[in-house]
Amino acid sequence: MEKKEQLYEGKAKKVFATDDANLVIVDYKDDATAFNGEKKGTITGKGVINNVMSNHMFQLLEQQGVPTHFVEQLSERETLVKKVSIVPLEVIIRNISAGSFAKRFGVEEGIVFDEPTIEFSYKNDELGDPLMNAYHAIALKAATREEIETIKAMAFKVNEVMKQYFDTLNVILVDFKLEFGKTADGKIVLADEISPDTCRLWDKTTKEKLDKDRFRRDMGGVEEAYQEIMKRVMGK
Amino acid sequence: MEKKEQLYEGKAKKVFATDDANLVIVDYKDDATAFNGEKKGTITGKGVINNVMSNHMFQLLEQQGVPTHFVEQLSERETLVKKVSIVPLEVIIRNISAGSFAKRFGVEEGIVFDEPTIEFSYKNDELGDPLMNAYHAIALKAATREEIETIKAMAFKVNEVMKQYFDTLNVILVDFKLEFGKTADGKIVLADEISPDTCRLWDKTTKEKLDKDRFRRDMGGVEEAYQEIMKRVMGK
Repeated sequence: MEKKEQLYEGKAKKVFATDDANLVIVDYKDDATAFNGEKKGTITGKGVINNVMSNHMFQLLEQQGVPTHFVEQLSERETLVKKVSIVPLEVIIRNISAGSFAKRFGVEEGIVFDEPTIEFSYKNDELGDPLMNAYHAIALKAATREEIETIKAMAFKVNEVMKQYFDTLNVILVDFKLEFGKTADGKIVLADEISPDTCRLWDKTTKEKLDKDRFRRDMGGVEEAYQEIMKRVMGK
Repeated sequence: MEKKEQLYEGKAKKVFATDDANLVIVDYKDDATAFNGEKKGTITGKGVINNVMSNHMFQLLEQQGVPTHFVEQLSERETLVKKVSIVPLEVIIRNISAGSFAKRFGVEEGIVFDEPTIEFSYKNDELGDPLMNAYHAIALKAATREEIETIKAMAFKVNEVMKQYFDTLNVILVDFKLEFGKTADGKIVLADEISPDTCRLWDKTTKEKLDKDRFRRDMGGVEEAYQEIMKRVMGK
C-alpha cells in the first residue's frame, strides 16, 4: 500500500492518502499536548506504543463484535485504516471520578460509580471541546438520534470489554475517550486510538497512574508509565 | 396563614416558614442578578410581576395535568406554596438557540430547532452551575434515574403548554429554566418560578426581547419589557 499525500496533521497523528480511496495510513507521533494544546511536549516512544496498543485493542474489540477502522499494521508507527468522516463528538466513558469530571462538579477523584457515565464533547478546538448532551448534538445536527444511539451502545460495549481486559492486567480502567467515524457506506465504526493518551489507567494494587495524567500534571515517569502499560498489554 | 421565621434568602426571593410544616411563603424581591451573581441591580416592580405571572402559569399548568408547588397567592409579592426539597438541577428547555447555548457551541442566536433540547445544570453557585448530563446526575446521586425521567417528561409537557400559550400572546418562547422539588411524601412537583427572569420571550412580530436579557445585556427598557409581558399574560 503506497503512502501518498498527507491529508491531515493532528496533535498526535498524521494521516496520509493511499492509492485506495477508502483507505488511509495513520502515522503516530511522539508529540504530546494537553489542555487543548496549551501544554506541549514530547513523550519519547509514545507513537510506537500508541500505535501498537491501539491496534491490539481494536483487534480485541473486533473479536467482541465492535466494528473498528483497523485494517492492518504497516510498521511500528504506521497503520492502514478505513477512511472515515469523524463524527464531531468526543465520547467519554467514566467508571470512576477523575480529571475534568472531578473539577467540574467539585468532587474528589476516585469515586467509583454504580453505573458508568457517558458524555459527549463537541470536537472544536476554538470552543475548547465543550460538553454537549445528546439533545444538543441532534439540534446542531452533529449526529442523528440513530447515530447517537448506535454510538452509545458501542461505547458501553467497549467499556465492558476493556474494563475486563485491563482487570486481567491488574489495571483499573478509570475513564477513556473514543471517537467514531462513518465509512463511505455510512456505517459507524470505532476510530481514532485507544492508548494511555486517551485512557486513564491506574495500577490496581498501587493506584499509580499509568497514563497521560503523568504528563498533564508534571508527575515524572511519563515514558516509564507508557512502557509499563505496553509491557502488560503485549505481555513482554 | 401566619408568616414565621425566614428559612432562606435567594437572589430573587425569600422563603418563610408558616405554622404548617408542609407549607412555606415565597416573597418575591425586585433584586436582579445575572452571570452567577457577578452583575447586580434592581428591576422596579419585578417582584410583583414575577409573583403574579408565576402563579398564573402554575395554575395553567395544573389545569393541564402538571403538578406544581402552588397553593394560594397571599399578596402581590407573597405566595403560599408546598414546602419541597429542591432537586439540585436547573432544567433548561430550548426551542431556539440563544444565550449560553449560542456562546458555548459557537452558533448564532435564533436557530429554530427541529425538536426542543433539554439540559441540566448542577445547582452550585461556587462551581458556576455547570452543565451536567443525566448520567452525571445519577452518578453523583443528584437524582435517581426515575426522578430524571419524571422531570424530563414534565419539562417537555411544560414546554408544549407554554409554547402554545405564549403563541396566543404573540410571544415566542425561546428557552426557559425550571426547577423541581420533592414534597414531604416524595412526589416531584414543579417549583421555583416562571417569569421573564427564567424565560427568554421574544415578540413574535418584532423579535424584540421581553425578558431578563434586557438587563443582562444593558439594553434598556427593562421595566417596560416586564410590564409588557405582564400586560399580555394578565390581559390588562
